[in-house]
Amino acid sequence: MQKQLAAEALGTFWLVFGGCGSAVLAAAFPDLGIGFVGVSIAFGLTVLTMAYAVGGISGGHFNPAVSIGLAVAGRFPGARVVPYILAQLAGAIVAAGALYLIASGKADFQLGGFASNGYGAQSPGGYSMMSAFLIEVILTAFFLIVILGATHGRAPKGFAPIAIGLALVLIHLISIPVTNTSVNPARSTSQALFAGGAAIQQLWLFWAAPILGAIIGAMVWNAVGEHDDAAIIGDLPTPQPPLSPNH
Amino acid sequence: MQKQLAAEALGTFWLVFGGCGSAVLAAAFPDLGIGFVGVSIAFGLTVLTMAYAVGGISGGHFNPAVSIGLAVAGRFPGARVVPYILAQLAGAIVAAGALYLIASGKADFQLGGFASNGYGAQSPGGYSMMSAFLIEVILTAFFLIVILGATHGRAPKGFAPIAIGLALVLIHLISIPVTNTSVNPARSTSQALFAGGAAIQQLWLFWAAPILGAIIGAMVWNAVGEHDDAAIIGDLPTPQPPLSPNH
Amino acid sequence: MQKQLAAEALGTFWLVFGGCGSAVLAAAFPDLGIGFVGVSIAFGLTVLTMAYAVGGISGGHFNPAVSIGLAVAGRFPGARVVPYILAQLAGAIVAAGALYLIASGKADFQLGGFASNGYGAQSPGGYSMMSAFLIEVILTAFFLIVILGATHGRAPKGFAPIAIGLALVLIHLISIPVTNTSVNPARSTSQALFAGGAAIQQLWLFWAAPILGAIIGAMVWNAVGEHDDAAIIGDLPTPQPPLSPNH
Amino acid sequence: MQKQLAAEALGTFWLVFGGCGSAVLAAAFPDLGIGFVGVSIAFGLTVLTMAYAVGGISGGHFNPAVSIGLAVAGRFPGARVVPYILAQLAGAIVAAGALYLIASGKADFQLGGFASNGYGAQSPGGYSMMSAFLIEVILTAFFLIVILGATHGRAPKGFAPIAIGLALVLIHLISIPVTNTSVNPARSTSQALFAGGAAIQQLWLFWAAPILGAIIGAMVWNAVGEHDDAAIIGDLPTPQPPLSPNH
Repeated sequence: MQKQLAAEALGTFWLVFGGCGSAVLAAAFPDLGIGFVGVSIAFGLTVLTMAYAVGGISGGHFNPAVSIGLAVAGRFPGARVVPYILAQLAGAIVAAGALYLIASGKADFQLGGFASNGYGAQSPGGYSMMSAFLIEVILTAFFLIVILGATHGRAPKGFAPIAIGLALVLIHLISIPVTNTSVNPARSTSQALFAGGAAIQQLWLFWAAPILGAIIGAMVWNAVGEHDDAAIIGDLPTPQPPLSPNH
Repeated sequence: MQKQLAAEALGTFWLVFGGCGSAVLAAAFPDLGIGFVGVSIAFGLTVLTMAYAVGGISGGHFNPAVSIGLAVAGRFPGARVVPYILAQLAGAIVAAGALYLIASGKADFQLGGFASNGYGAQSPGGYSMMSAFLIEVILTAFFLIVILGATHGRAPKGFAPIAIGLALVLIHLISIPVTNTSVNPARSTSQALFAGGAAIQQLWLFWAAPILGAIIGAMVWNAVGEHDDAAIIGDLPTPQPPLSPNH
Repeated sequence: MQKQLAAEALGTFWLVFGGCGSAVLAAAFPDLGIGFVGVSIAFGLTVLTMAYAVGGISGGHFNPAVSIGLAVAGRFPGARVVPYILAQLAGAIVAAGALYLIASGKADFQLGGFASNGYGAQSPGGYSMMSAFLIEVILTAFFLIVILGATHGRAPKGFAPIAIGLALVLIHLISIPVTNTSVNPARSTSQALFAGGAAIQQLWLFWAAPILGAIIGAMVWNAVGEHDDAAIIGDLPTPQPPLSPNH
Repeated sequence: MQKQLAAEALGTFWLVFGGCGSAVLAAAFPDLGIGFVGVSIAFGLTVLTMAYAVGGISGGHFNPAVSIGLAVAGRFPGARVVPYILAQLAGAIVAAGALYLIASGKADFQLGGFASNGYGAQSPGGYSMMSAFLIEVILTAFFLIVILGATHGRAPKGFAPIAIGLALVLIHLISIPVTNTSVNPARSTSQALFAGGAAIQQLWLFWAAPILGAIIGAMVWNAVGEHDDAAIIGDLPTPQPPLSPNH
């Protein structure tokens, strides 16, 4: 399992370094900055690219809520949930540290929120705790539905990283103004550790809501999707049919 | 058929929650907002992602005009059109409600048009009813041509959700200034119910024009495309060849 | 051949209606407009979507320079070049007419350049005729290299519309400021007919440079790429291997 | 090997002409300019498109750091590294020359940085040499991990150019403000030759950091990824299974 944990740590490093990095370094650059569109694309592409790179090793979760949701759906062994989450947290925190080192090399560096998540006064658009909770639940639920559906045996082979990565682009396009978009407790934790203060106090919501959403998404998929041909995600190589020349 | 209707409701929920949600919550955020480019990408990605997730269950219409057009083209059983449309409307309306709950959690919330469609004084750019009708007809016709062509037996397998989702991105890039872009009566209806007033009065156009366009698109495709190998969309799993290792 | 010509007309309609339409209707919308990024994405997606939809019928050229370049490369029958170009021009001109009807339904409509191409005083950024000629030659040459390479028998199956469509996105990201980006004489002609004046006088360049570039691209590819497995593009269905369940 | 070198030169020409070209010509166009988002997309699409076009010939490196990293990982013959790098440099420098010709055809042309890379006073956002070095190492390391993972025998076939091209989009979304983004010594060299001055003095970093990052990425992948089924990248055609109709 060591290679799987290393793959999860690497992928979550990339998610935080790339997604939060684009937000911290490039979003608000004068005149030419990438804005929320660019940050949304960046977050999604971290998952798309690493799912192609190491998805065949670990399943490419990079997110505690995803690991939990997959376990609830019966597509990931429950015994691996905790080690996966620890690896994800480790990758995320190291990434936030690397990002801090780089960002603080700017002459007029200010920490600001450091891309942390929040609600109420910490919400980019001033949305309430209820709005934040509800949107994180809904978005994580649909994230799981897309993950479970796109990796299902009936779905076309090889396209899952595109569907899943672009789902994360979409999720950010909707919700950065509300919570700065979490749907991923590891990403929220790493940034809160550096931002401190309110980001730490509000961190509970960015564990509770994504995990609740992931569980709901898993249950909805299991009710609506079909179970036959379902593949374990993260226990085996993704089931590419062995198209050997001599078959 | 219950799983198919659930899939259509889920998909249309996602289309409205994601597409209209990005417009309501993120388009006009000061300085960093996603603008029409971001909203266009969001609408398209709702369809791309859910087509990969549940397209194998219901065919992934998420749009009454699409269901009607596919039936006209002989690619979807006519008897299922009405149940599909009802499921789509249900998903859309619940999504608009959830979006309303979230959006209204902002301190200075104003309903505004709530991403509803319109022409004349309700058109974002002040375009006439004729312009609105014409562009909705043309865009929905081509949407059907892309759907019918990309799911045709001759088209490369597995790519249809990309072609169809990105067609919806394109459609929004062209026409948000004219009608706020419908091509989907379910999406127009859900938003009109919340926006009220002129959005309700103008709702007829966003049923009439997309449905007329879809019928034209189906007829054009049937004249230009070929019929052999055509697959029913929404009655059967998408025809993935059973590439089992032992075949 | 009638279905092939109809497919070319439809595809070129979509290219002009979608690409030029996004430029005319949405690029400069106050605050939320799509800018050159959105127009670039729109042009590319017209080709990506219609190549999936009707590429299996006509080959999906939608561009006189492409038809000529493919013929020079020996991948398209020379006798079909003229009929294809006429179909492309017909589709483009009808699209410009439809776009004119819609755009003129705006209260304060002004024709402006109507997304026509130009150099010198007509160049968006004021670039010289030499700059315009050179960039159109280079970009069309690489467009052909991508088309010929991505549809080559050795390239992965099914991805060509993605490579070709995104090449057109890229081409526009580079060159809208120089010539408003042509690389397609049909698109230049349709817009010049409506814009009139200088756009007509400068139209020669947007036939000469893209065609010269396409010929150069075809020759470069034939020198660098390999010939075996090359498929005729537009004479036969794209060579999808017949993955029937019983093979 | 001549065709391979020609393919590398063509691909690196396209990377520099398209990526740096979009930055020089279109990024800062008044009101409608493409900004860092557009430049990021442009860079990534140069690699995506040429990897589909000529990846089957040369492997599609287009970057000295990539060739070195692949050799370290045992996926590319060491004896070919130097010729590949020379071909990449040639393509990049000719591209910068062509871009100069075009850009200087603007009435009020100013050379500026000509899209060169830099740190300290030359960093777009004023980041230190340490920040620049660190981010170039990290980003190139992950670029190699994505390249090695997505072309691994276990990864889905045909998707590698999407994963790799979009990884380059992501890399630019993160780091243009820090170094103007290199991760590619050929791209840095060609622009420095035209920009001169500080760009030449700082060029060492944009060889040292990307190459160090590529070596680290190769070692990380070899530790985490698995070795069986690994394909040589650039020595053989990409291993498309020969899906001939009669197998």
